[in-house]
Amino acid sequence: MAEKNFTPSELYEAWPILSTEERVEGFEVLERKNADDFFLQLNARDRAELILGLPAGERRLWMRLLAPDDAADLIQEAPAEEREGLLALLDDATRREVKGLLDYAEDDAGGLMNTRYSRLRADMTVDEAISYLRRDARAREKTVYYAYVVDVEERLLGVVSFRDLIVASGEKLVREVMRTEVISAPEDLDQEALSQLFMRHHLMMVPVVDAQGRIKGIVSVDDIVDVVQEEATEDIQKLGGVETLQGPYLQVPLLRMIQKRAGWLAALFLGEMLTATAMGQFQAEIARAVVLALFVPLIISSGGNSGSQATTLVIRAMALGELRIRDWWRVMRREFITGLGLGTILASIGLARILVWQGLFNAYGEHYFLVAMTVALSLVGVVLWGSLIGSILPFILRGLGFDPASASAPFVATLVDVTGLVIYFTVAATILRGTLL
Amino acid sequence: MAEKNFTPSELYEAWPILSTEERVEGFEVLERKNADDFFLQLNARDRAELILGLPAGERRLWMRLLAPDDAADLIQEAPAEEREGLLALLDDATRREVKGLLDYAEDDAGGLMNTRYSRLRADMTVDEAISYLRRDARAREKTVYYAYVVDVEERLLGVVSFRDLIVASGEKLVREVMRTEVISAPEDLDQEALSQLFMRHHLMMVPVVDAQGRIKGIVSVDDIVDVVQEEATEDIQKLGGVETLQGPYLQVPLLRMIQKRAGWLAALFLGEMLTATAMGQFQAEIARAVVLALFVPLIISSGGNSGSQATTLVIRAMALGELRIRDWWRVMRREFITGLGLGTILASIGLARILVWQGLFNAYGEHYFLVAMTVALSLVGVVLWGSLIGSILPFILRGLGFDPASASAPFVATLVDVTGLVIYFTVAATILRGTLL
Repeated sequence: MAEKNFTPSELYEAWPILSTEERVEGFEVLERKNADDFFLQLNARDRAELILGLPAGERRLWMRLLAPDDAADLIQEAPAEEREGLLALLDDATRREVKGLLDYAEDDAGGLMNTRYSRLRADMTVDEAISYLRRDARAREKTVYYAYVVDVEERLLGVVSFRDLIVASGEKLVREVMRTEVISAPEDLDQEALSQLFMRHHLMMVPVVDAQGRIKGIVSVDDIVDVVQEEATEDIQKLGGVETLQGPYLQVPLLRMIQKRAGWLAALFLGEMLTATAMGQFQAEIARAVVLALFVPLIISSGGNSGSQATTLVIRAMALGELRIRDWWRVMRREFITGLGLGTILASIGLARILVWQGLFNAYGEHYFLVAMTVALSLVGVVLWGSLIGSILPFILRGLGFDPASASAPFVATLVDVTGLVIYFTVAATILRGTLL
Repeated sequence: MAEKNFTPSELYEAWPILSTEERVEGFEVLERKNADDFFLQLNARDRAELILGLPAGERRLWMRLLAPDDAADLIQEAPAEEREGLLALLDDATRREVKGLLDYAEDDAGGLMNTRYSRLRADMTVDEAISYLRRDARAREKTVYYAYVVDVEERLLGVVSFRDLIVASGEKLVREVMRTEVISAPEDLDQEALSQLFMRHHLMMVPVVDAQGRIKGIVSVDDIVDVVQEEATEDIQKLGGVETLQGPYLQVPLLRMIQKRAGWLAALFLGEMLTATAMGQFQAEIARAVVLALFVPLIISSGGNSGSQATTLVIRAMALGELRIRDWWRVMRREFITGLGLGTILASIGLARILVWQGLFNAYGEHYFLVAMTVALSLVGVVLWGSLIGSILPFILRGLGFDPASASAPFVATLVDVTGLVIYFTVAATILRGTLL
């Protein structure tokens, strides 16, 4: 590091693999102008880490570069004991705004909003509005494209974009050019619902209002991109059977990485222990017909894989708002047919495999056909069962108030493994009684 | 349906579960004003389905409601034989624009861009620019917030937002208020890279330029939200071992649903057949010590689960741009330590379980301690192996030019199952030789 100054772009590329000290060092040698842009590119977590790594005297400058909502996000990412100190770096007006924002839950519309937006009165003319906005410092905020029309009690009456003002003739009233059908969000709307609102109506900006219809701030679509990405990451990690990491892969300390994975892995392991118990129940059958044991991994993994497919599809469809709880029965019916179809396909392949191996190597003894039928029928049952369990589990979890994404692929596979064994050995006991068993 | 007219909002909610006929019927009874808004809320696929369901005479109206980029998206979603007919409904100017857009790949910046944007000259004054924009119909496009400053050859010189124009004093030159450091995208930039550009720089709009620096169109962040959501859905479905569905869960016909799932499921099944072959190699050992068979599902599923965790984390980190190919060795080192740690945790639980069951039920015979050691050591090996395979596989796939997300959790589990069996029986042969084996 010491031998070489990074360009802003090199520093950004290298960022994930640098230690805190290296980051601070790399940042401090950037030219002031580049450093500004660089700082604004970072996410809230990295900004907090960087600011806290700088000498106390240099922090004020960077804190004051941030809009109130960004400052609030940074403070939320900082350790509790540093928060007061960071707040104290802001000017009085911004500090009040930031404190107000910190009262909102991070994941609510209120926690995402920017409190700097332009307000207009409905009975101004367009020319008056333009000259008012020229004097209004808030209109200079980089991310603002709309002015909101409010009454004397700050209740939202309508919205005009800066474009609307430019293209309208100057003597018209704001009332005449504003749009009155404004899609707004309540303060406590969850960020996932908020992003669905943005996507459904293709919005660039949504005003956040309180219960009395008073405007409290605005959320911009560029923050929603981050929300959508973040929610997808959470769902993907849960689906993979990992607690949400809360940070880039390479930056999560190893011990925390192990913690985040050990919980689910140990829980799944405890569940999977039931397979040893289940197998123990059929120990006598295995001793009599060792050939049965050979197909155990094949059969239970097929159930697990079909369950993983079903749970993935249902969880994603729920997250996209395509499935609601009341659709569970339609999903069951579909999965019943799908599971039966998929099970039949795998059963045919399995049957062919056993018959071919028997023909080539005489691998499965004189009762090979009964063994083949046992495997084939078990596959139909296990794949059907996997599809049903995998698709119903997210509904059950959601119905109980849990996150449906907790029905991870490994979780479903574990459930299906135990029951799959029971299905397999029950089918075997029925078909092979009097011959192998 | 016939008894009841939907409100626009009811129709939108019910949309996923309606047939094409019901959709057309519900749409046709909406009031004209509501129908406009409703139509614009739909995605390109639904718009195409709806338009083609309407009588030929009504289609023109709805096609002409769309901006050129939306019209191009709709036409791309329509069956090939309908495309010419839909193009013919547009006015000449729009048809030329749409044809130009159809030449771009759907997933490139060029395929996402809107060709209606406002252009200014650098030597206009702000007042001249405003009065020019008042006359320019393109400035009336709802989604435009910027005007692009170009030279006589359409090369991009800078950008001004409508807000910049409003807040600047009128006699200044556009040259003086424009920003010249414009982040632009080449026409053929992939949509995933484009969305990373948007997120990194918190952009609202990006101009798309050709190799000569001439502006061809603009991409707006609200389209990027859709891209991010769509890419996440693709990755999630691949991770779950399903081909991308290309449609909402309930709308995919059952036969296609089975096709989308049967491919991977059958491939995994063929791979998993190697477990039967592997188990066959150890048939003699199983016959001598049936107790070994009891732990097979437990051990291979632990490898599969740890592999699923590792592959999920690495694939997501790659999609977010946090990991590149050259990071593979760092990832390996991390996964080596993590896998060892996780394996040790599971081994301890497994050891305790066997010793307790032995104490309570005398479940595992006189050599129970050796059996316990076999299970514990195998768990360390299998979990370590799963973590390494799960994390390296996405790198290998990407290195070979495949999508890393094809390293689905079920794929990794299948790979690890076969090798897990070999690890387990090799450990058993070593530890139990002379006693059970």
